[in-house]
Amino acid sequence: MTSAANILILGASGYTGAEAVRLLSAHPHIRIGGLTADRRAGESMGAVFPQLAHLDLPVLQSIDDVKFEDYDGVICGLPHATTQQVLANVPSTVKVADLSADFRLRDPATYEKWYGHPHQALERQGEAVYGLTEFYRDDIKGASLVACAGCYPTSALLPLVPLLEQKLIDTDPIVIDSKSGVTGAGRGVAEGKLYCEVSDGFHAYGVAWHRHGPEIDQELSVAADADVVVTFTPHLVPMNRGMLSTIYVRGEADVCHKALTERFADEAFVQVLPFGQMPQTRHVRGSNLAVIGVVADRHSGRSIVISAIDNLVKGASGQGVQNLNLMLGFDETAGLDRFQPVFP
Amino acid sequence: MTSAANILILGASGYTGAEAVRLLSAHPHIRIGGLTADRRAGESMGAVFPQLAHLDLPVLQSIDDVKFEDYDGVICGLPHATTQQVLANVPSTVKVADLSADFRLRDPATYEKWYGHPHQALERQGEAVYGLTEFYRDDIKGASLVACAGCYPTSALLPLVPLLEQKLIDTDPIVIDSKSGVTGAGRGVAEGKLYCEVSDGFHAYGVAWHRHGPEIDQELSVAADADVVVTFTPHLVPMNRGMLSTIYVRGEADVCHKALTERFADEAFVQVLPFGQMPQTRHVRGSNLAVIGVVADRHSGRSIVISAIDNLVKGASGQGVQNLNLMLGFDETAGLDRFQPVFP
Amino acid sequence: MTSAANILILGASGYTGAEAVRLLSAHPHIRIGGLTADRRAGESMGAVFPQLAHLDLPVLQSIDDVKFEDYDGVICGLPHATTQQVLANVPSTVKVADLSADFRLRDPATYEKWYGHPHQALERQGEAVYGLTEFYRDDIKGASLVACAGCYPTSALLPLVPLLEQKLIDTDPIVIDSKSGVTGAGRGVAEGKLYCEVSDGFHAYGVAWHRHGPEIDQELSVAADADVVVTFTPHLVPMNRGMLSTIYVRGEADVCHKALTERFADEAFVQVLPFGQMPQTRHVRGSNLAVIGVVADRHSGRSIVISAIDNLVKGASGQGVQNLNLMLGFDETAGLDRFQPVFP
Amino acid sequence: MTSAANILILGASGYTGAEAVRLLSAHPHIRIGGLTADRRAGESMGAVFPQLAHLDLPVLQSIDDVKFEDYDGVICGLPHATTQQVLANVPSTVKVADLSADFRLRDPATYEKWYGHPHQALERQGEAVYGLTEFYRDDIKGASLVACAGCYPTSALLPLVPLLEQKLIDTDPIVIDSKSGVTGAGRGVAEGKLYCEVSDGFHAYGVAWHRHGPEIDQELSVAADADVVVTFTPHLVPMNRGMLSTIYVRGEADVCHKALTERFADEAFVQVLPFGQMPQTRHVRGSNLAVIGVVADRHSGRSIVISAIDNLVKGASGQGVQNLNLMLGFDETAGLDRFQPVFP
Repeated sequence: MTSAANILILGASGYTGAEAVRLLSAHPHIRIGGLTADRRAGESMGAVFPQLAHLDLPVLQSIDDVKFEDYDGVICGLPHATTQQVLANVPSTVKVADLSADFRLRDPATYEKWYGHPHQALERQGEAVYGLTEFYRDDIKGASLVACAGCYPTSALLPLVPLLEQKLIDTDPIVIDSKSGVTGAGRGVAEGKLYCEVSDGFHAYGVAWHRHGPEIDQELSVAADADVVVTFTPHLVPMNRGMLSTIYVRGEADVCHKALTERFADEAFVQVLPFGQMPQTRHVRGSNLAVIGVVADRHSGRSIVISAIDNLVKGASGQGVQNLNLMLGFDETAGLDRFQPVFP
Repeated sequence: MTSAANILILGASGYTGAEAVRLLSAHPHIRIGGLTADRRAGESMGAVFPQLAHLDLPVLQSIDDVKFEDYDGVICGLPHATTQQVLANVPSTVKVADLSADFRLRDPATYEKWYGHPHQALERQGEAVYGLTEFYRDDIKGASLVACAGCYPTSALLPLVPLLEQKLIDTDPIVIDSKSGVTGAGRGVAEGKLYCEVSDGFHAYGVAWHRHGPEIDQELSVAADADVVVTFTPHLVPMNRGMLSTIYVRGEADVCHKALTERFADEAFVQVLPFGQMPQTRHVRGSNLAVIGVVADRHSGRSIVISAIDNLVKGASGQGVQNLNLMLGFDETAGLDRFQPVFP
Repeated sequence: MTSAANILILGASGYTGAEAVRLLSAHPHIRIGGLTADRRAGESMGAVFPQLAHLDLPVLQSIDDVKFEDYDGVICGLPHATTQQVLANVPSTVKVADLSADFRLRDPATYEKWYGHPHQALERQGEAVYGLTEFYRDDIKGASLVACAGCYPTSALLPLVPLLEQKLIDTDPIVIDSKSGVTGAGRGVAEGKLYCEVSDGFHAYGVAWHRHGPEIDQELSVAADADVVVTFTPHLVPMNRGMLSTIYVRGEADVCHKALTERFADEAFVQVLPFGQMPQTRHVRGSNLAVIGVVADRHSGRSIVISAIDNLVKGASGQGVQNLNLMLGFDETAGLDRFQPVFP
Repeated sequence: MTSAANILILGASGYTGAEAVRLLSAHPHIRIGGLTADRRAGESMGAVFPQLAHLDLPVLQSIDDVKFEDYDGVICGLPHATTQQVLANVPSTVKVADLSADFRLRDPATYEKWYGHPHQALERQGEAVYGLTEFYRDDIKGASLVACAGCYPTSALLPLVPLLEQKLIDTDPIVIDSKSGVTGAGRGVAEGKLYCEVSDGFHAYGVAWHRHGPEIDQELSVAADADVVVTFTPHLVPMNRGMLSTIYVRGEADVCHKALTERFADEAFVQVLPFGQMPQTRHVRGSNLAVIGVVADRHSGRSIVISAIDNLVKGASGQGVQNLNLMLGFDETAGLDRFQPVFP
């Protein structure tokens, strides 16, 4: 290429926006041409995120002042509902990797049931491609709008989709016990996210009824070609980044392990550990990696599958860059493969 | 009583030993008459645990120098295997609350299978009472040796035993996804317990094959009057204290909730939250409380039960004091009810 | 006594309010008769602080609904400025231990300079006694209103006042480099207190110009009988509780150590470590203890003095209870001496 | 260049070794040709550090099996004392960036006093260049052996050297109150580094007598052309990475700020904040940046200077790579400038 692609980041004052800046700041084919943050418009990115103050970045602007046609691509880190309003009018020539939940559910009725209001941009939803790269790679290459997978769904779907596609596990019961770092809740202020309310303790939230449940169901049902309804419990871990899902399924552990190993052998960002080994979130911190382990239960015919990702990278901004790379014709790993996990 | 009971703490240089000192230091009917720590014998408790330096405590001594008959009771915080050797010869007139795993498994074959060697004190094991106070209260009152429940079993059994006894849930599948603070691993040095290996991350360990699995099976099988084999996965949380078990069962959530509420209504240390509310470990930190919540799954007829304890208190030393109180004829809550949770 | 003193806690929805409840819940001579929290009026304490849900406590009420004359004493955990308005009209027969900053500065001009507005309750300020118990014990016994020392001043003044009174150190330079846990910032929501903004990092704030500076100056000037202006830098530590002040002074370390050891020999809540040993905040967590260490600098004639407290206990609610005990005629240690540090 | 420089990492099983691998894994001009770890020889790097398992790295070998002449350069992350024995015989044609303390002190008598034994490789010490790149850049370019600055010295010297060189501050008193993350203590197992002994608390260690004191003195004395002896207190912060030094000096704050701003204007890895702003360690996490802030004290003529680095990067392995870049003729920032801070 003669020139770098010009990218806009919507919602740059949030954690996923800042993470997109980190990941793109040294991208070989992309330059950050615009940053929006309505409440901080006119300020520098360094004023909002001091860790980025040394970079030469555009001043934060209001979304109203954006000319979308100036950009080759967009990473959207806006909140739910706002996103569909903003993206409704973006020209389809601009490639959009959306990190919000707005375009993930294909069925408008399901969307309305779980989000409490009718969808405001149904036409765009119709053209949206679900953005779990490892499963929708070809569709993503030609898409205008990619609905990147949620963090919990990413961690659950990576191991489960191949197992259901190959009919190696039962469609029920599937119990997904997930644990997330606190960045998953975003940067908005709330008592429940204060340091003293989160540190040195552990709890579940949104048990059984978290909005990522139907998103997981949707993709597993496609994979199984049958209706799948999972049992899903998210928990909050006193850590900044990381997500671990412990998944209980009916299927032979060694068979599952072999299938996953083969399925992901050529994937740059998915590793399957040797049989019986377990991943740790700290070993993917800051990277786009997903690591999967499989263990046999004491009950024969039952397996425990564990996956670990960094919720801000593979679970959000890294997946966004991975998809944008594909949409813009770059190598899928461009700019991402140099970020090794930061441990400790 | 005219005089306080004289208590010996075995293994005072470990976390459970220190916690026993904290809990007993202001006990109305007990005085700490002896402390052992073989490798630190001759030193003060304050040299080993500076937070206790201001207390007037006995000098640490070697177990070989102990005259057990001088004591009314013992809290034993020794490691596995050592415990059975030491306790084999303690006179049965001395009441022992043992925090180790040595006397929990009633079946010697099961013990040998999971611990890798034949039990060394089978006679004493025969007289041991399983120490989950809420279920074995009457037996504990007359016992000489109480095998206090493990931390994971305590968190799992408190909600599950009543549900199985009342046949409100199926005996299979029962999935117990547990998360523990780091004190659960003790004070022995090991790379995996270093701050930098534990903080800001999350992982599972001993998946499906942790030694607390058969202990849980044993007690659930008694409750169900049938063989129960659970699926059990422990995880390590970057926090000092606390244990949360997320338990997936087949049974009606509202019925389960009602039964647990009634079963524990008169228990001083067990609280059942209103239907649909979830406990947090930080809200029991430092106290002998167990808190239980019940939620309905999206699948009708399935429930998610969550329990929270402080693994060092209700999961270890607090349960030990609770049992010792009963064995010595004191009120079960003596010295324990004044420790409200320390939050934040 | 025939009956317990009836105590009101103002500002029960904050961390210091909840901590006062924890400390008073098992107090031998005090019962909690009232709790206020304007924004949560009508709710139970357990709704605001689930860790206290198992206690039998009064419903939260609005301050407007309080009849102060019903109470023997008050612990006030209200914010700055609000406090002076509320306490202005409390009858002087009601003993008040105030945890706010409103009545600590004796000079109205200094107050106005640092707090940006004239004091609204100058008469009450005139009768207020500074509440660092170890130095104002006799005055506190007869006081109606005690302005409990700030957390930073408590940690700095305990070692410095005796050294200046005895003229063992120079009045200048005195450098106080302090580090606080996050509860010191209260429960109000703010971006800077979010878990992800505080964890796994360290920073200074309010450098040289924190409002606790003039409070420290005031008391050191009294002790030295000369104007003292310290250099004071507060820092935020990713921990819930605890405060450590590292203090650099001109004076002989061994002489200073001996003087502090003697001065605090009979104090229940102040420990001076053997020469050269250093305190840790985790060893006072949850207790009313202050621990002090003294080390010689490489420059002869210079010393480093380090003190550790729990900012929520000795630095706030514990000191409040200690003072209220004195004001109500109880033993100073009543209800406090049973709270040994919770470690780990 | 036609081919990448071939680099050996000594001590790859430690945190600085692993960090060197992370930083070099995507270096444009360097490839990792060898890794040593005596106790883990024969194992893969992924077995020792799972976060690196996906990289194609040499198998760990014993130092005895290394042929140093095969390498263009070495990053040495060996422990003190071992280092001098190993490096004594490395040919001077191999460029060595040493992260240990062994070659930092120029005066053998000072070394012997602080390390308790005579230096074992005095010839090599004679040729060693002190490795704080920003001050010894030209010497480093021609050096065979660079003694990279200690983490504490790096954080203290960066702001202090220019101020003393320009005689803007007094040579005494200089008080350096430093706070470090736990990786600074290495990966060796010890009770004091266990999660439960470090988390949720704060303490000082090695007060006034830490071995980095004389190293700081040495460099400040050179800068001031006069004997400088600082007062230096290190503290341990419950965080993985990061170091913050709060430094109290005699000098005009605005003058100091201006001088530092100008001095570091062209440095790629040193940022001076606007006057009165303070750095946070979390904003340099994982990067080679040092950030400096200056504030005026309440005493005129006195200043507070605060610096923040990541102790594992600018304070160790990043500085090592920076120096190796210079020694091997590459751009100083090669491979380092793409690592933006990881926040949160």
